Parts: sequence; structure tokens; C-alpha cells
Amino acid sequence: MDKPLKYAVFGAGSWATAIVKMLSENLNEIGWYMRSVYTKEHLLREQHNPNYLSSVEFHIEQLKLSNDINEIAEYADVLIFVIPSAFIHSELEKLKVDISNKIIVSAVKGIMPETELLVGEHFHDIYKVPYENIAVIAGPCHAEEVALERLSYLTISCADQNKATAIANSLSSDYIKTKITDDVIGVEYAVMLKNIYAIAAGIAHGLGYGDNFQSVLMSNAIREMKRFIKKVHKMKRNINNSAYLGDLLVTGYSVFSRNRMFGNMIGKGYTVKSAQMEMNMVAEGYYATKSAHELNLKNTKKTQMPIINAVYEILYENKNPKTVFMKLTEKLD
Amino acid sequence: MDKPLKYAVFGAGSWATAIVKMLSENLNEIGWYMRSVYTKEHLLREQHNPNYLSSVEFHIEQLKLSNDINEIAEYADVLIFVIPSAFIHSELEKLKVDISNKIIVSAVKGIMPETELLVGEHFHDIYKVPYENIAVIAGPCHAEEVALERLSYLTISCADQNKATAIANSLSSDYIKTKITDDVIGVEYAVMLKNIYAIAAGIAHGLGYGDNFQSVLMSNAIREMKRFIKKVHKMKRNINNSAYLGDLLVTGYSVFSRNRMFGNMIGKGYTVKSAQMEMNMVAEGYYATKSAHELNLKNTKKTQMPIINAVYEILYENKNPKTVFMKLTEKLD
Repeated sequence: MDKPLKYAVFGAGSWATAIVKMLSENLNEIGWYMRSVYTKEHLLREQHNPNYLSSVEFHIEQLKLSNDINEIAEYADVLIFVIPSAFIHSELEKLKVDISNKIIVSAVKGIMPETELLVGEHFHDIYKVPYENIAVIAGPCHAEEVALERLSYLTISCADQNKATAIANSLSSDYIKTKITDDVIGVEYAVMLKNIYAIAAGIAHGLGYGDNFQSVLMSNAIREMKRFIKKVHKMKRNINNSAYLGDLLVTGYSVFSRNRMFGNMIGKGYTVKSAQMEMNMVAEGYYATKSAHELNLKNTKKTQMPIINAVYEILYENKNPKTVFMKLTEKLD
Repeated sequence: MDKPLKYAVFGAGSWATAIVKMLSENLNEIGWYMRSVYTKEHLLREQHNPNYLSSVEFHIEQLKLSNDINEIAEYADVLIFVIPSAFIHSELEKLKVDISNKIIVSAVKGIMPETELLVGEHFHDIYKVPYENIAVIAGPCHAEEVALERLSYLTISCADQNKATAIANSLSSDYIKTKITDDVIGVEYAVMLKNIYAIAAGIAHGLGYGDNFQSVLMSNAIREMKRFIKKVHKMKRNINNSAYLGDLLVTGYSVFSRNRMFGNMIGKGYTVKSAQMEMNMVAEGYYATKSAHELNLKNTKKTQMPIINAVYEILYENKNPKTVFMKLTEKLD
């Protein structure tokens, strides 16, 4: 490629802000689309995002900010989507630009509830983006630690390893190490499933289970994740790599994870609705639970996934968390 | 077996006390050897261990307490050793009773520094206990949570699965679930290695690395552990089972782990000696690091174990933790 690729980030949450920060270590210009006019104006005036990672100061001359998704989509060669899965569908409805020849990177942590597709699949099916132009960014990585420039590792997966490398290079810095893989589907499912396990960890904590149980839960979760991903996309992968196990751990052990917090409230007796109202948001894992459950129902030979099933029964069948977890503990080892 | 087996616990630390509590849910009588006359007198008078898990009340009529190791060794059929690896050698020197026909259970978390043998190997070599009579108890299990009767899972490994089952049954209760395996050597090494990784986690924390890095460290640690154990004892095992991964996580993520605390002090700049003096004890992982390092040196085809090597360089070669970890971060992924 002669001209350097132009990058843009879509979204203005904490993870989007962290990714813009990473890119700003390497690139002269970054496109940044955000829905909120207020956020854009605040960024222009104060050089930081008013709502997320507000300690991160940007050099405004590096940023091409816009509230027009089409302007930024037109501008960039590499489009990094970092919009929560619950909102990405309605955001994308505004998109009129042909993006079929662009590189699409998903940093969305979940599945799209409207279509039940992985974000990559959605871009392939609806926008005719070829699979070799679709990449996924996975952690383990709390955005808050990126703000603090604490050493973090990212995994970039893309069927085209040259593109994975290019994206990885644009994100790497003193405090960000990257590796690449071609397991796009496996990584995307892992990112989705870990949120369900984080809800499970939260429920367990809310019910009064301790650290001993938490470690057994995580040990069972990674085995369940391996079975699940193997069923949907069989290939040689080491499930203990950072993109799978590491990401599960950073989420499952984090007291800051919104999925874990949501689970904790459920475990303590909140209803799903009141927990969502209290948190003023819907945790990604809530949708992921339904999708994973339904995906498994479709398979003729079902995967044993007692943890996901337990979370499903609690969130969607209104079953008592205490009773469900009592039964779950018999299935773990 | 016609007569029920008689059980005895050797040691009076927190893990020993927790094991006596588990046994007391099932057995009418438990032998309990402890070195300290004061501890024994206190237990008789106050029904609890003065130094560890003192919230646990025992029924004294269930306990056969003694400060004479030979009396308790003579009494029991199943001898459960729960003495720190640094002290077990000197304790065993008092043992005059023939124990070659007894069942020996190791709940010692480490390797014996004097002989560099796993505890099971020591009993086999020195006391002529056949391997089918040697068992190991592994977690993941903090003793403190046993005191609180929080649900915990144990793995009992023994080449003779009937004996493993008998021991597991004597430990099971409402709050203790057990599973059995025949991977005695693998489990014993896992128990030893996790303490080294807990030291590494502590050093990282002391140096200011965050949760993102911790999850990458644990993800690399379990892969390293798998390579190490496979080299010393090749058999089919799932390294993500609770006895391996679960135990690693409960120790590596615990702020109460003495190994992690020791590492944390090293990371913060204490010398090994001053950290040990401050803690008034030697963390098991300190010896384990040396043993694992030397074991690997003996192999012609060495295992890649960057984490253990890093801890070794810091603890035994007086290298700067910051520099060593900077290099280590390049080797992780």
C-alpha cells in the first residue's frame, strides 16, 4: 500500500476513547465519529471526553471529529466500530456510504440483538464486506488501564494476516503489546461469552459464594467456552491464550465490569428490570446469554453449557438465582 | 475394609485446622498432632486453635490431640500431613513408627527443600510407602473460607481410586465437594508451581502492573504450567480442571496469599531477606522456585518457562525486579 491507511473510530464510550488514545500514539490523524454534539463540542473545547476516561488529554489537531457517521465512514479506510451491541444496529441505519471495500474492525463486545449476528457477520451479510477485510480487537484490556498507560496486551484477529499486522501496528506502543491471529470467529465468540461468565461470577458473589467457588467457576467457564467455540467454529486454537482465557479472567475478576455488577445485583435479589434501571444500561452479557442459548438450541448435538444455561434461566425464565446456583454447583467440578 | 479407617492430621496451621474441621463433619474421632504444647492446651480448654481459624469451634471429644508425632502415627491408618514444606523434614525426623503400610496423604504445598523431593516421593523413598498408598489433597481452597463454610471444591488424587474415594468421602460435606483423579504427580507439581506464579503476580502488582497485565500473566502461567508438568509426567490431563487452573487462580488472585504478598514486597523494593523477616516466615514458593529451576536445568530438552525463570533471577540472582519484568513482558503474549 502506497498511501498510509486512514483510521476512524465510531463511538465515544470508554473503550472507544481508549482506542483513539492508542491510535493517537502512532497516527497523525484519526477520524472519530460520535453521536453526541455535546461530547464533540466538549472535546474541541477541553481536549477530553466529558463522560469517559476524562483524564486522557487529546491533541485536537490529531482528531477529525464529526457527528456525521457518513462523513467519517467516507474519510477512513479502516473503520473501527466501538458502539455497544444494543445500539450499533440503529447507528448503522444512518450509514449511506458504500463500505464494501473498507476494512471493518469490530471492538463491539457482543452480539447484535436485532439480527443475532456477530458484528463481523453483520457487516459481511448486510454491507457485503468480504471476510478478509473484517477484523476483531480483543483484550484482555480494561479501558481505564489504557488511560493510565498500564501495560496491556491486545489480540487482533483477521483472516488476512497482513491487515491484522497493519492494525496491530497502529495500536502498539510502549504500553500496548499486540499479537495477531486468524481466529476471527473464535475470538468474537470468546468476547461475547466472557460477558455471560462475568454475569455468572457476579450472581455467585451476590449470593455469597466466595473466592474458592469463583476459581472453580472460572475453571469450568473456560472449559465450557472451549466446547462452545469448538462447536461453532472448529479449528486449532489454544483456549488458554490471552484473547480467550485472559479476557475471561480480566472480566470475571473485575469489580468494575458492568456485566459482573449486573450479575451481582441479580444475586442480591434485584429483578432483571430493576437492575437494568438502577444501572441505567443493559449489560452486553444480557443479550449474549439469549443468543448463546438459542444458538445452542439450534444444534442437533448440543454443547454441555451448564453455566450459560443457569444464567439464562435466571435472566429469561425468572427462576430463583439461589435455587439455580444450588443445582449448578452439582454440575461443576 | 471391615473396620473404618482412622484418620489423623499432622500440623496446626490454617490449612491443617481446616482439614480437621472437614473431617469432623464425618468422623467420630480424628487424631491431631501438633508440635506446640500451648496450642494443644488451648484447644482442650477453649475448643479452638489459638493461632489459626480461631472462629472454628471443635467438639473436643471428637479429637485425639497429641504433641507426640509417634502416638498419632501409631493411632491412624490415614496420615494427612499439613506441615509447611520447610518444616516437614525436621518434623519427620522424630517419626520412629513404621508407616510403610499406612495411607499417606500430602496436603503440603510445596517441595521439601532438603531433599528437593515432592512430599509423595519423599514418603516413598524414605519410608517405603508404596505409591498406591500415597494421595494428595489439592484445592482451590482458602482455609479461611472453609472456616466460613463457603462452598469449596477439593481434588483428591491417588493411584488407587478406591483410596481416593474413601479419602474424598471423609472430607465431603454440605460445603465441600470433592472429585478424584489419579494424576498424583501432576497435581502435586501444580500445587507447587502455583505458588511461584503467585509470587510473580505479587511482584507485578508491587511494580505497578495492573489487572490487564495480571490476566495476561495468569494466561501465560497456565500454559507454562502445562508445559512443565507434561515434561515431568506425561499423561492425559485437562490443565483447566480446578486442581490446576482453579488452584492457580485462587492463589494468584488472592490478596491474602502469602506467596503473593511476599512477591508484592519484592516488587515494592524489599530484599528477599527483609521481606522474609517482615513476614516472619518463608513463603513456600520461594523454595519451589529454586526446585523448579533446578529440575528444568537437569532436563536436556528444557521447557520454556519465562515466568519461573524471571522469579528465579529476582529471588536467587539478586536481579532488579523492574528490569527482569520488563524483559519478561516481551516474552508473554
